[in-house]
Amino acid sequence: MFWNEKIECMSREELEELQLKKLQKTVKLAFNKIPYYNKKYTDCGVFPEDIETLKDIEKLPFITKDDLRESYPYGLFAVDMKDIKEIHSSSGTTGKPVVSGYTRKDLDTWAETTARGLGMMGVGENDIIQNTHGYGLFTGGFGVHYGSHKVGATIVPISTGQTRRQIEIMKDFGVTCLIATPSYGIHLAEVAEDDGINPKDMNLKAIGFGAEMWSEEIRQKLENLFGAPAYNIYGLTELMGPGVGVECSAQKGLHIAEDIYYPEIIDSTTGKTLGENQKGELVLTNLEREGMPIIRFRTKDLTSLTYEPCECGRTSARMSRITGRADDMIKVKGVAIFPSQIEKALLKVGDVEPHYLIIVTRPGTLDQIEVKVEASKNLFFDGVKEMVDIQSKIAKSIENETGIRVKVTLVEPKSLPRYEGKAKRVIDKRNLH
Amino acid sequence: MFWNEKIECMSREELEELQLKKLQKTVKLAFNKIPYYNKKYTDCGVFPEDIETLKDIEKLPFITKDDLRESYPYGLFAVDMKDIKEIHSSSGTTGKPVVSGYTRKDLDTWAETTARGLGMMGVGENDIIQNTHGYGLFTGGFGVHYGSHKVGATIVPISTGQTRRQIEIMKDFGVTCLIATPSYGIHLAEVAEDDGINPKDMNLKAIGFGAEMWSEEIRQKLENLFGAPAYNIYGLTELMGPGVGVECSAQKGLHIAEDIYYPEIIDSTTGKTLGENQKGELVLTNLEREGMPIIRFRTKDLTSLTYEPCECGRTSARMSRITGRADDMIKVKGVAIFPSQIEKALLKVGDVEPHYLIIVTRPGTLDQIEVKVEASKNLFFDGVKEMVDIQSKIAKSIENETGIRVKVTLVEPKSLPRYEGKAKRVIDKRNLH
Repeated sequence: MFWNEKIECMSREELEELQLKKLQKTVKLAFNKIPYYNKKYTDCGVFPEDIETLKDIEKLPFITKDDLRESYPYGLFAVDMKDIKEIHSSSGTTGKPVVSGYTRKDLDTWAETTARGLGMMGVGENDIIQNTHGYGLFTGGFGVHYGSHKVGATIVPISTGQTRRQIEIMKDFGVTCLIATPSYGIHLAEVAEDDGINPKDMNLKAIGFGAEMWSEEIRQKLENLFGAPAYNIYGLTELMGPGVGVECSAQKGLHIAEDIYYPEIIDSTTGKTLGENQKGELVLTNLEREGMPIIRFRTKDLTSLTYEPCECGRTSARMSRITGRADDMIKVKGVAIFPSQIEKALLKVGDVEPHYLIIVTRPGTLDQIEVKVEASKNLFFDGVKEMVDIQSKIAKSIENETGIRVKVTLVEPKSLPRYEGKAKRVIDKRNLH
Repeated sequence: MFWNEKIECMSREELEELQLKKLQKTVKLAFNKIPYYNKKYTDCGVFPEDIETLKDIEKLPFITKDDLRESYPYGLFAVDMKDIKEIHSSSGTTGKPVVSGYTRKDLDTWAETTARGLGMMGVGENDIIQNTHGYGLFTGGFGVHYGSHKVGATIVPISTGQTRRQIEIMKDFGVTCLIATPSYGIHLAEVAEDDGINPKDMNLKAIGFGAEMWSEEIRQKLENLFGAPAYNIYGLTELMGPGVGVECSAQKGLHIAEDIYYPEIIDSTTGKTLGENQKGELVLTNLEREGMPIIRFRTKDLTSLTYEPCECGRTSARMSRITGRADDMIKVKGVAIFPSQIEKALLKVGDVEPHYLIIVTRPGTLDQIEVKVEASKNLFFDGVKEMVDIQSKIAKSIENETGIRVKVTLVEPKSLPRYEGKAKRVIDKRNLH
């Protein structure tokens, strides 16, 4: 189901022509209207007229979260405040929050991206969407909300929390599409099962998951639980919100709305641009934003791009699922480890629940990792010998995946914390001096 | 500032002509498209053609919350599900929740009502609105949000919670209009003062308060705290949401969007229609709703109507502030008392904070009321004699207002619970058998 077939399936040649025109316009806008960019570009000796090809984007300096913080709150706005119609913001748990401003046209562009995503998931005007993402300054809730309005679906803007009520409404309202974080999706299914409700009986036709990293194994788990395909949705507040990339029915990477976001992959350490299929840090550029054009934003998210045509007919670049964050990486004994690797390894073994916590300590001079994993209910009642066996199997599986030996502790089912928003997977006690 | 001067200032004659046409259309729609209404009206022997004048509305039976519950979830929808674009719902703490459905045009009509309200408050495209109402199935957040989009203001959809962050953002973002519940408004000001910030320095130009009953005394208090006019906003999910009535700069009653909601006042016991300026239960009818027309809904809110022209130039009926609820009333020793009366009485005395709790008990056969009130900081340090004096002054003031003798207990400043949503003012322990 295409929301905008003309754009989604246009030839790469046409698309790149369009991208170049929009990029030139965006760089000119930033340079002429935003003193922060003007100074930054002038300092680097790069000017709008230097952008003659798409490749020339590499001449431009990156924008990082620090730039956004320095220009807090309105230093990156390209228009008068009276043309900014909505403001969102990241949570700002570390330092000043990051602000994102939208003109009326920007809100419509944002809706266009999530509308395309809903189309990829097969969701349209006959569907009822239960949106469990939080509404507020966080963009998760509103991105889906505006996209739903655009495709003409029925939105149930329930937001987070009240899990039993969510389940009741899902059944009673005839919801066909659920939007959630992967961890909240699993929690919903667990609570339903506790109440004697089979999540499959909800007859969902699609589930969209975002705002969190997750693995193929968790996808399998979620699809088995709900009996419906689970799609990956990606986006970030700085660039506008969810809708940067969404999976189609092929589930082979997320289609980037490339006429709206220009993607690059760089080596996180050197900043050098990497090629197709090479894994690195995703860098994104707004190609269609009036209020606050962000050019070459370092997302810290690690992925790779492919430009292969997709079996669905869309011609846009696809990003692979995010496998880690340049800054979420745990460096242990010189080795970089991501929570996603550990998740993958432990779900391979089975007999465990997809709830785990990684605790990093440095008792003496050496780092230690302990992984707490919830045993499945059956396993937990099987006895100590079985538990010990599984623990060592998991430890071996993690060592295979990461090269690092970790301590694995199986814990009682449902004893680890559940999260209604982003799950916290790593506790790094080494920083607590 | 008028958002829609033509409608807001039209002659009563023209307005009533418009209302009649819309009422006839609405009754026809309900009768023809909604089996629940069809049966109800047929049972009463009343038919669409019986509505020849506005007065004829009295022939129609009322709709109550029970009707809405009985037709849960979609029994009062007049259109196909695919034309319902958004669903809201009341919290459903007692029984099944109440569902409210909106077509695309309904969402626009709803936005029109809140846009008019923002206009009355002098808020337009140059303003920045911090909306602390909750987003989600509750309509408070979205009603203001859509109205802000319509007038072209900048909306900061911060939702509830994180009070310190709210204060920081209010300052940093240059917010000019705050939307909150009265109790949360006071809480915000208190926290700001604790942090050494004078709420007046926020330079708000208007504050809109809704979702809770409040008194003139609390208005005075809020206006003194923030140094900005505080306006009353009224609405309810069943009818669409906030925007049913909003105060203009005259602050002499809430202008009802009468071309969109038809108001009546009835005697809560007999159901008989009351005249202008007579206090009773507000009954509302959607005149402009496609998705779920609600006809003669008993709001349980007690108020009165005036049709006198307002000094602002608007011709619409004005409702006085809600002074109680037909079902929130505390009946003690045969006398009906409302929390609002107690609030009014205790704020008259001074030296207390606008935080109080009414506890109703029945130790033997007689009901007793205890009112816990927070002493002001100064009073609390003045000593016991002063406290006892004030306690008896408050008790006398409450007796004057209600005719009932109550026990007053002054408690430490900030010792009573604060609410981010609707404040809970009454604990009735008589029901706990």
